[in-house]
Amino acid sequence: MLTSPWIESRARITPHRIAIECGEETLDYAELERRARNVAAALATRGIQPGDVCAALLPNGLHFAVLLHAADLLGATFLPLNTRLTPRELTYPLGDSAARLLLHGDDELGEKALLTAGSAPGVEAQSIAALVGHPDVELPQRPQDPVSPFAILYTSGTTGRPKGACLSRSNFVASATASALHCGVLPEDRWLACMPLFHVGGLSILVRSVLYGTAAVVHERFDPVAVDAALDRDGITLLSLTATMLARLLEVRGSRSAPGSLRCVLLGGGPCPAPLIADAAKLGFPIMPTYGLTEACSQVATRLVDEAEPTALSPLPGVEIRIVDDAGKSMPSTHPGEIWVRGETVMRSYLTQRGDNPRPDGWLRTGDIGTLDAQGRLYVHDRRSDLIISGGENVYPAEVEAVLAEHPAIAEVAVAGVPDASFGQRPAAWFTTRSGTSDPSTEELTHHCRERLAGFKIPVSFRAVGQLPRTSAGKVLRRELRKIE
Amino acid sequence: MLTSPWIESRARITPHRIAIECGEETLDYAELERRARNVAAALATRGIQPGDVCAALLPNGLHFAVLLHAADLLGATFLPLNTRLTPRELTYPLGDSAARLLLHGDDELGEKALLTAGSAPGVEAQSIAALVGHPDVELPQRPQDPVSPFAILYTSGTTGRPKGACLSRSNFVASATASALHCGVLPEDRWLACMPLFHVGGLSILVRSVLYGTAAVVHERFDPVAVDAALDRDGITLLSLTATMLARLLEVRGSRSAPGSLRCVLLGGGPCPAPLIADAAKLGFPIMPTYGLTEACSQVATRLVDEAEPTALSPLPGVEIRIVDDAGKSMPSTHPGEIWVRGETVMRSYLTQRGDNPRPDGWLRTGDIGTLDAQGRLYVHDRRSDLIISGGENVYPAEVEAVLAEHPAIAEVAVAGVPDASFGQRPAAWFTTRSGTSDPSTEELTHHCRERLAGFKIPVSFRAVGQLPRTSAGKVLRRELRKIE
Repeated sequence: MLTSPWIESRARITPHRIAIECGEETLDYAELERRARNVAAALATRGIQPGDVCAALLPNGLHFAVLLHAADLLGATFLPLNTRLTPRELTYPLGDSAARLLLHGDDELGEKALLTAGSAPGVEAQSIAALVGHPDVELPQRPQDPVSPFAILYTSGTTGRPKGACLSRSNFVASATASALHCGVLPEDRWLACMPLFHVGGLSILVRSVLYGTAAVVHERFDPVAVDAALDRDGITLLSLTATMLARLLEVRGSRSAPGSLRCVLLGGGPCPAPLIADAAKLGFPIMPTYGLTEACSQVATRLVDEAEPTALSPLPGVEIRIVDDAGKSMPSTHPGEIWVRGETVMRSYLTQRGDNPRPDGWLRTGDIGTLDAQGRLYVHDRRSDLIISGGENVYPAEVEAVLAEHPAIAEVAVAGVPDASFGQRPAAWFTTRSGTSDPSTEELTHHCRERLAGFKIPVSFRAVGQLPRTSAGKVLRRELRKIE
Repeated sequence: MLTSPWIESRARITPHRIAIECGEETLDYAELERRARNVAAALATRGIQPGDVCAALLPNGLHFAVLLHAADLLGATFLPLNTRLTPRELTYPLGDSAARLLLHGDDELGEKALLTAGSAPGVEAQSIAALVGHPDVELPQRPQDPVSPFAILYTSGTTGRPKGACLSRSNFVASATASALHCGVLPEDRWLACMPLFHVGGLSILVRSVLYGTAAVVHERFDPVAVDAALDRDGITLLSLTATMLARLLEVRGSRSAPGSLRCVLLGGGPCPAPLIADAAKLGFPIMPTYGLTEACSQVATRLVDEAEPTALSPLPGVEIRIVDDAGKSMPSTHPGEIWVRGETVMRSYLTQRGDNPRPDGWLRTGDIGTLDAQGRLYVHDRRSDLIISGGENVYPAEVEAVLAEHPAIAEVAVAGVPDASFGQRPAAWFTTRSGTSDPSTEELTHHCRERLAGFKIPVSFRAVGQLPRTSAGKVLRRELRKIE
């Protein structure tokens, strides 16, 4: 699967299968290849060589998929940028990766791209519309290099400075095949992508589709009404969502059960409250909570379809997981420790390895906290950066959140540490209230927790908010919570 | 997927899924692993080391699967022997592979094994029943070597002397993943194995099941009535057959349509007559004719589920195919030539590479004849060894057979060359007659051919026979045809 560009192999084997649907447009693999060759030829005349970095500031859509494959045809590296960043923020990944071109559309993002390129030395802004329709040019034939970077993805940066994860072609192939064996794959699969394609979860849908010969149904943005309609109308078999998206989808869906075609809902972007999974399961949604990492090409561990326990995640075939203490020693499996991950899906290194995430023996230190049971199933407790240490005791926000999520009046909840003179930190909670119910009182919530948690884990304050601050990937921005008065 | 023995990884991830069903017995993966560890411990006490060859003369059944995984746990090489060979024939692969143990059951095959071991120097016969129930012993922990031989399979030997194809763990993993992407895989899959497990087609079902975490439903032998019943009763989703087996199954099935659970019928072991495929398709059987090779770990090219043309076979992902002339030059795709195959599924070499099948640049010269169309789809014409050269013209038996198979009175047909003073060779035909019809005359069949074939392709004789001579894999033994008077 690595000897020629993916779109070339795929268009040869199944030229007339649907590759991508977006809005009113549908491309089969032959047409997607034709457009990608077209753009690749235009990029080649602009001097793009194998190994050069082509950045893109593009919304979800056909241009994104065409450019992805054009870069692959040239042996170039694709750098999809987070469209929600400011021009000032965007200059960092462009400079760090020494990108040469910044491809953009002719919408307001195009203006942002022009502004960005103006302040990024050596980066030329290029409208992708001007590349389409380039006359056919013979592209140089060269075998693809399986270990050179296929894409660079900057991690979402909820903590510290973004880092460029270099993902190779073989990382993506390993991820696609492991996911297929874990979740199943059928030639008639149709995977709905309503998450940003610039994140690894969305990008993987495009790459898996071309490797599987299946269809990607791309929505420009997450709209729960549109997703709801697509489920019933478009024969969707696979769906990737965050917990927040799932909650909004269920609100729209009401009591209508999941369509029979839907085989798997991958739920990523952080822990999901168990009551939400239960609500979805009641409607027949095949929810598969997933622990994923940009650095491991998305899925690391995913609940199996026949797994009874909703939060028990099984490692994908070929992925190894260890739980390690601060001294780097493997923990007894029942004790929470740092999650380390190894396997063919894991990147070799960040673009500029800064020494803050060394990988002895190929192990990626994730910074996340979890346990493994005797059967090797992973339970994710929290992001290490979110760990609250209170009076010498560790408090894992996810545990407190799970308890509060059981309260009938609470829709969404996040817990973070706040400074405390006596204990160093104390947990505090921010929540949204279910529609049709009034805000519960602090007394009521404290009482609710007291029945279920040790004293040091009970939040010192509970604040009702309109919505929780989140990254574009759907992760709660805990440092932003503390700014809410 | 290569870091530990397959059964160990699988039993850890999905211990309670069904691994294998055979007759009244059902084993889940935990129990299959327990039995395999048991036998592995017993083999270790008998001195079996990594790299040693463990031969097996076993019928389809649980013992076969247990021994396969026991060998893998020890890093030993598994040599499944064709149970239909005579003791005299069996001594060749045992000697050629330097096998140390010959495992057998306590049936009549056991007696054959004892006879065989008696005349094979250095080979000890061992009843597998005596190994079961061995006390648990800690097995040495060592990483599996992906390129060392996992199994040695002697090719069926329709021509010349059998050769031992050395198939590595990575060959099998590549084959399993490529097949999954080509044909689809679901966690609830149940693959019916009614072909001999000692051939690559049957063995692959066991290996794929453990890699996929799916169930193998094993029949001791092909019985069309039993297969027919299993299709309706046992939720079979995948089925591997030869053309002859399919014909017999359809005879039993009558007008009952295929069950909705059946997703894919892999049809291997040689070309299949188009009318048979059409008959099966009318009943809703999803027939996927397959070109496979022992040397390439089974499937090389398989019809896609959405392929309109019944004999157009698409290469599996990652498999490369070339058509080459006698001088080793790539042919224009419309001209028949030798099929060469390359990819991660292809063995590195035969056990004793005899120089009669060199593999420049990793290309396996198959000896088979085919063409590729512009889309890269393979059409298999014939086994090269069966090519009839008549008066300087090439006659491909499969082409003549396909024409004769269209005759309403003919059930099965085979064509081979017979010596001819004037032309060197001339084609001749042997056939079986459909039940309820009388043998067609030579005049009638000659007339039938004359309307459809050039003169030099028309058989000089047509003989009605009770059945066609076949190998245990279902291939017609053409050299035996010529002995039929």
